[in-house]
Amino acid sequence: MNGRATINGNMAKKYRVGILGATGAVWQKFIEILDQHPWIDVKAVVASERSAAKAYKDAVKWISSSPCPADIAEMTVLSAGPQLDCDFVFSGLDARVAGEIESDFARAGYPVISNAGFHRMRDDIPLLIPEVNPTHASLVNAQQWDSEGFIVTNPNCSTVGLVCALRPLVDAFGVEAVQVTTLQALSGAGFPGVPSLEILGNVVPFINGEEAKLAAEPRKLLGTLQDGRIEPLDLTISAQCNRVPVLNGHLECVSVKIRRKAGVEAVREALKAFKSPISDLCLPSAPAHFLKVFDDENSPQPRLHASLGSGMTVSIGRIRPCEVLDVKFVVVLQNTIRGAAGGAVLNAELLIKQGYLKHRVLKEDG
Amino acid sequence: MNGRATINGNMAKKYRVGILGATGAVWQKFIEILDQHPWIDVKAVVASERSAAKAYKDAVKWISSSPCPADIAEMTVLSAGPQLDCDFVFSGLDARVAGEIESDFARAGYPVISNAGFHRMRDDIPLLIPEVNPTHASLVNAQQWDSEGFIVTNPNCSTVGLVCALRPLVDAFGVEAVQVTTLQALSGAGFPGVPSLEILGNVVPFINGEEAKLAAEPRKLLGTLQDGRIEPLDLTISAQCNRVPVLNGHLECVSVKIRRKAGVEAVREALKAFKSPISDLCLPSAPAHFLKVFDDENSPQPRLHASLGSGMTVSIGRIRPCEVLDVKFVVVLQNTIRGAAGGAVLNAELLIKQGYLKHRVLKEDG
Amino acid sequence: MNGRATINGNMAKKYRVGILGATGAVWQKFIEILDQHPWIDVKAVVASERSAAKAYKDAVKWISSSPCPADIAEMTVLSAGPQLDCDFVFSGLDARVAGEIESDFARAGYPVISNAGFHRMRDDIPLLIPEVNPTHASLVNAQQWDSEGFIVTNPNCSTVGLVCALRPLVDAFGVEAVQVTTLQALSGAGFPGVPSLEILGNVVPFINGEEAKLAAEPRKLLGTLQDGRIEPLDLTISAQCNRVPVLNGHLECVSVKIRRKAGVEAVREALKAFKSPISDLCLPSAPAHFLKVFDDENSPQPRLHASLGSGMTVSIGRIRPCEVLDVKFVVVLQNTIRGAAGGAVLNAELLIKQGYLKHRVLKEDG
Amino acid sequence: MNGRATINGNMAKKYRVGILGATGAVWQKFIEILDQHPWIDVKAVVASERSAAKAYKDAVKWISSSPCPADIAEMTVLSAGPQLDCDFVFSGLDARVAGEIESDFARAGYPVISNAGFHRMRDDIPLLIPEVNPTHASLVNAQQWDSEGFIVTNPNCSTVGLVCALRPLVDAFGVEAVQVTTLQALSGAGFPGVPSLEILGNVVPFINGEEAKLAAEPRKLLGTLQDGRIEPLDLTISAQCNRVPVLNGHLECVSVKIRRKAGVEAVREALKAFKSPISDLCLPSAPAHFLKVFDDENSPQPRLHASLGSGMTVSIGRIRPCEVLDVKFVVVLQNTIRGAAGGAVLNAELLIKQGYLKHRVLKEDG
Repeated sequence: MNGRATINGNMAKKYRVGILGATGAVWQKFIEILDQHPWIDVKAVVASERSAAKAYKDAVKWISSSPCPADIAEMTVLSAGPQLDCDFVFSGLDARVAGEIESDFARAGYPVISNAGFHRMRDDIPLLIPEVNPTHASLVNAQQWDSEGFIVTNPNCSTVGLVCALRPLVDAFGVEAVQVTTLQALSGAGFPGVPSLEILGNVVPFINGEEAKLAAEPRKLLGTLQDGRIEPLDLTISAQCNRVPVLNGHLECVSVKIRRKAGVEAVREALKAFKSPISDLCLPSAPAHFLKVFDDENSPQPRLHASLGSGMTVSIGRIRPCEVLDVKFVVVLQNTIRGAAGGAVLNAELLIKQGYLKHRVLKEDG
Repeated sequence: MNGRATINGNMAKKYRVGILGATGAVWQKFIEILDQHPWIDVKAVVASERSAAKAYKDAVKWISSSPCPADIAEMTVLSAGPQLDCDFVFSGLDARVAGEIESDFARAGYPVISNAGFHRMRDDIPLLIPEVNPTHASLVNAQQWDSEGFIVTNPNCSTVGLVCALRPLVDAFGVEAVQVTTLQALSGAGFPGVPSLEILGNVVPFINGEEAKLAAEPRKLLGTLQDGRIEPLDLTISAQCNRVPVLNGHLECVSVKIRRKAGVEAVREALKAFKSPISDLCLPSAPAHFLKVFDDENSPQPRLHASLGSGMTVSIGRIRPCEVLDVKFVVVLQNTIRGAAGGAVLNAELLIKQGYLKHRVLKEDG
Repeated sequence: MNGRATINGNMAKKYRVGILGATGAVWQKFIEILDQHPWIDVKAVVASERSAAKAYKDAVKWISSSPCPADIAEMTVLSAGPQLDCDFVFSGLDARVAGEIESDFARAGYPVISNAGFHRMRDDIPLLIPEVNPTHASLVNAQQWDSEGFIVTNPNCSTVGLVCALRPLVDAFGVEAVQVTTLQALSGAGFPGVPSLEILGNVVPFINGEEAKLAAEPRKLLGTLQDGRIEPLDLTISAQCNRVPVLNGHLECVSVKIRRKAGVEAVREALKAFKSPISDLCLPSAPAHFLKVFDDENSPQPRLHASLGSGMTVSIGRIRPCEVLDVKFVVVLQNTIRGAAGGAVLNAELLIKQGYLKHRVLKEDG
Repeated sequence: MNGRATINGNMAKKYRVGILGATGAVWQKFIEILDQHPWIDVKAVVASERSAAKAYKDAVKWISSSPCPADIAEMTVLSAGPQLDCDFVFSGLDARVAGEIESDFARAGYPVISNAGFHRMRDDIPLLIPEVNPTHASLVNAQQWDSEGFIVTNPNCSTVGLVCALRPLVDAFGVEAVQVTTLQALSGAGFPGVPSLEILGNVVPFINGEEAKLAAEPRKLLGTLQDGRIEPLDLTISAQCNRVPVLNGHLECVSVKIRRKAGVEAVREALKAFKSPISDLCLPSAPAHFLKVFDDENSPQPRLHASLGSGMTVSIGRIRPCEVLDVKFVVVLQNTIRGAAGGAVLNAELLIKQGYLKHRVLKEDG
């Protein structure tokens, strides 16, 4: 690429980005998604000291069926430390180290677009899905890092599927309570992740920390921005999370209690008619169809439908009455793309369009 | 075997039983379970005309890892028709033909212990799980077949797991509403059943007819016998049913609204303390532990725990508060044993003890 | 599409093609591959009487993760009978009916590009892989159908992987004997194909007819065209074929006895240096790399590498000495694309370039 | 148990055994197999310092579907060091530490029955399968540890299946060369072992070190004991090893070149007629049928047949002519039982019967 692309209608210099390391699926998905990206160039890959100074191809166990882009493969892995020649960074850091390293980068003046969980629920940090709560991005103005740095996060993968399906219902009818049972794919656990002896031909009905995230994050995501802070939605969520032997694609069985009573067909209509608030922004990673609503009773299925819209479309089906709450349905989302790396990249694209991400004046430009 | 065994403390002639054909897992499970049974001898295997007159081993595609018992393997398959030299019959018939054939046998004077769905919800036919509603067996007295025949059914496999877990809670606290999401094994679909191309590394969020059965059957099973009929329990159930790539063992994520409020520990205690109403009957197929309650957060899992108690124990775990209803937990049951063939055999054992199944006086005895 | 495309440097009318029905993966792969094809338009889908007169979308159980092309989905399925408004037909017919129907079409004047097995070994019918034996196409001149029709076949899927890897070795060193053990994917068995209860977590060491095809077809494919007929290669092959729980991609463990002794590095070099004889023809379905040779010890793997080159590249790895024969290695190929539908389409492209496939003058053109 | 059992026709004190730790499947299989063993009592479990001083149940991630025996579960794990109150030890140690620790125990006077690979090929150490080479046990007399200690090993799991099938053919016809392609189960890699993301729906055509073991170990196992040493069999073996998504049970496709030519039926007969040389010893872990020969074309399969004979029977099927060598067939064995823990226990039973394992006079007996 030539380092220039059309953004906001003008030819513009591409953004230089560093990727703060992560094991497994997420890291590699960042690199796959950013390969050939029209606005963003990967200029640095940062990982733990164990990997530092190696060529990326030697530091990573590449598990994707698409080969690693050649230029990234040869890139030397840097160890963490906020002195990168980059405009901003993506963080796919492991939860145990994300808090400290991301804060270091923010303090050093870097915008951090994070897929890690550490900062998600902090009051002054946006938890962002562009189609769901794009205005929450303005929280970055409230962050105090004594620099131009800030942190923006995207939600836990299973939260994403749930919240994308709830957004139209909250808008149209209000939502009071949600029961959700997830059937989550292996790639959500990273690499090496779940041992094959544990999961082949089996279900594990427990994922550490997952149910708490699913109960908490949607309230913030669906909350209202008021006076520079988020008023969480008054919503009760109960989650049961299971690991299943599926490679990619989380399936969620959702049951919803809505506030202003409406029939199943009105719910279906609200989901089909939902207009993404960013549809006019032409963000490169935004799918043509944010929500895909299936009418046949066998869909959506993770292996068939998670990859729709290059993994950025959220699929919904089997919309029917719930005997206990009001309506129930099934959601499928691609957990490593829409639910992780792709979501973070879309967040960056939104922040570029909104003007929050800027080209940093770096020494070698001077 | 010598045709005699100890029943009710006395040496007794074994019951001669016929098996009304079925494809796949259930049929074979009947034969596996009845091999070496102390009270029951398989004397006839009955199947469709396509299989009739063949040796059983040539008519069946045996899919179990334990070999087919040698004497059954050589038995000639009979075509359906109620002229068997048997005391009663088990029916694992396909749903499409079960209604008519089972009725024919009942009219011809045979007790029919059925695993098929057709007659389950009929008012005068017991839907029976010995540990849950043993007194319902007396409905057979009300049946009018102009003969000594009658029909007793066991529930749909996923119903069994749910109802076994609910029985103690209904007794202790009352239950008002239930949300259940199932992750069901492949063997529940029989053979050939689910194509591998459809389910390998995938989830199919639809099982034909399953959700309706799960919503209806528990109300009858947990109902009260009054004046010779069942008063269904006032209970609302919402079910979401999924097929997952597991060989054996249905997992169910259950959330319960109880009537007399009680904490999670009281619920756990009620489940652990439940005393099976048939524990004194020493039925050969009754497991030492009807319910197994796990305290660790990773259990139960279908591949590890479905086979507990020779597949007749129902496992429960992850008992915790539900933010929307009251309490939630996970149930695992072996679907082809406790949920099908083993359940039917246990029903027969109960009916023998209760005196409903008798030795028929057959011509060749005279 | 506008019905015109560039072939042989000129804008040309696209070829109208009919697809003679087949169940499962192969049929659908034809349609996926032909969607957006620059030279070929699908104008008719033909299937058994059971499906005839239905819309294609209602007649097919679509199992691919990419949706069925919209125009095909709405096409009315025709029943078999050689009165199509097409220039030629693809046949993905079931083996039991392919012989008769394909002959009918050939007699009626249609070129038949067949993926079915029936006619493969007939002396006057080419068994064709463009990169392996493009000159064998001229056998069509010898066919006697009393019309302009002819039949060209592509090999059995597992044959394709083996022969593509052997071609360079036959050319460079001569090959005397081959031992091959296959680990074949589920999609090779069509749909519904292998029951999940049979194959989940298992291996089935038998595939009906497969070992005989693998032993016979390579001798014809690698044979020499002499005086209008094929002199088979003097080559002994022993095959052991297994079904494994993999969705797509056959893996073959191959051991080769070569005629003119050569070390492993010479073999590796011959495989890497092989120049496809059709590389100058710019056929749309020909991959940029016909053979991909891996040097690392973990490759190739079916899930990671079968889809290389849009499923048309054949992957080879683990080239090492064989203690019993001379050299051994591992081959992976995409069985439904390179090994079936994609191979047939590439054959059609070659036949177009070679001039064997022509635009038929049809009545409605007059 | 009461510490006494019938051995050699007399009631005898049971042997006290320690288990030298190992991760995963093998360790647990030892404990499962030794539970209820008539001759052997587990008196100590030894593991790395990380696990030492914990209760066994807290130190192990128990992955079997049968629960851990209660008395073992409560046993305190000891750290390695040869001061155990035991008559001998089983070693399921990790390859990296087995050499040193096993030698320490042998020097300290303990017989070590090892499943680890380190000492297998040492000239003075028996590599033992009781049905294959029981006389090789006498090599222990040649070992020089300055004590009564010695080491006996069992082979690598995939070697076991091959060699058990070859023994009758070597005896009847002589065997000159073998080609073997393995499809190996996940449990062979221990726990956590193979990541699920790597192997679900996939094949990995490489297992580190496996092909070399398969090429070397059979020559020693099938060798001749002469003048106190083993003369290896003159046999050439070429192996290709693959990991497949199967839980338990290695499948091996074998092709054999025999010395004295014989037809397929003679080979089948030799396999069926083989009489185990230990069949008169009544060893508790010896299966009723050492070899099971299948005549149908679909058998053996790992999931259906690996567990025959409690996992100690080796299954053989699809015996047919090989076009390149002489005869080919398929072997299935249970890799963690016959191929690991069960094989080691059977070795101990043989050594007890042969008089090599004795009750040690321990201080607390005095």
